[in-house]
Amino acid sequence: MAVSTKSLKIHSNAENQMIDLTQETTDFIKKSGILKGIVTVFVSGSTGSIITIEYEPGLIKDFPEMLDRIIPRDLDYGHEQMWHDGNGHSHVKASLVGPSLTIPFMNGKLCLGRWQQIVFIELDTRGRNRDLILQIIGE
Amino acid sequence: MAVSTKSLKIHSNAENQMIDLTQETTDFIKKSGILKGIVTVFVSGSTGSIITIEYEPGLIKDFPEMLDRIIPRDLDYGHEQMWHDGNGHSHVKASLVGPSLTIPFMNGKLCLGRWQQIVFIELDTRGRNRDLILQIIGE
Amino acid sequence: MAVSTKSLKIHSNAENQMIDLTQETTDFIKKSGILKGIVTVFVSGSTGSIITIEYEPGLIKDFPEMLDRIIPRDLDYGHEQMWHDGNGHSHVKASLVGPSLTIPFMNGKLCLGRWQQIVFIELDTRGRNRDLILQIIGE
Repeated sequence: MAVSTKSLKIHSNAENQMIDLTQETTDFIKKSGILKGIVTVFVSGSTGSIITIEYEPGLIKDFPEMLDRIIPRDLDYGHEQMWHDGNGHSHVKASLVGPSLTIPFMNGKLCLGRWQQIVFIELDTRGRNRDLILQIIGE
Repeated sequence: MAVSTKSLKIHSNAENQMIDLTQETTDFIKKSGILKGIVTVFVSGSTGSIITIEYEPGLIKDFPEMLDRIIPRDLDYGHEQMWHDGNGHSHVKASLVGPSLTIPFMNGKLCLGRWQQIVFIELDTRGRNRDLILQIIGE
Repeated sequence: MAVSTKSLKIHSNAENQMIDLTQETTDFIKKSGILKGIVTVFVSGSTGSIITIEYEPGLIKDFPEMLDRIIPRDLDYGHEQMWHDGNGHSHVKASLVGPSLTIPFMNGKLCLGRWQQIVFIELDTRGRNRDLILQIIGE
């Protein structure tokens, strides 16, 4: 049994951008030499999230639109009254969607469906440098 | 420390069906002989999710109704414009609810509350064969 | 590699109260002597959830208000018709937000962002005694 950790720095360009992390995660498992276990993909920060989704142009619009519908930008957020940084909706979205995803793998291969990718979504109001953690536990 | 993995094939009959996986998960932990650790329950696929819920007839209606309310079937989904398979809402729901759940166990027993079950929910528009993964890490 | 488990009993005072668990989780990792791995924070029960959020007075209002908006208390819940305990909305909220969060740590330190705390949210209609589990797997 072993733990293997990778710090992954990425850059997003704009609110609602989705970045596919599947290849990066696959490569990291291969490099670790660990054959079966779990990988946790985590975003350090309170305005981004990790999901699985079919990474295609339709859903890349649909998922953020859903979040905008249920958590609109222009409500009267307490966070805005305190800090005036215009991203109250970003925080609420990220807490609902969540910063962490744990995926099993077997024989060195992620147990994902064919149309299921691991994706970071930028929920802040502008592009940002992001610190992600990929951490494998297995044998 | 050990990793123990079970591929679990289930069949759903219709959209929004919920299937209780608690007994199956409990049995798998017992069979593994592992006494303390975590079990990750994961659905390979982008239109189903894993939750905990009190598995009773009222909530079996209430939870899917909530999803239908916030992510209605009849919106104009980009996924539908691309692929015409009628399940844009299914993908958006599944990405929000999530494909993965990690539950600790101690003394061979899941740390669930008395009214808290581990449940798969079918979010696609028809019954499907589903590949789930149960994976234990512990000692 | 080792597993270390802590049962944590907390008390909430009212619906929507949020309780910061970051220090407790940090202390438990330090005490365990485990330097790298994951910690799973889990609530045993079907009407409470674990999230990460910037724990400040604005968002402490905003996050519960979002849940009240998308899952209002006064809808006609099947759970209410069955059990008459007035908390159908609590169950639906908790199943959506989720009972489990897995966070990596390195060099004995949680991989959280500077404004990102680990928080329990009470979603039931009254204060309750709550059983949480903190479980570390690592080396």
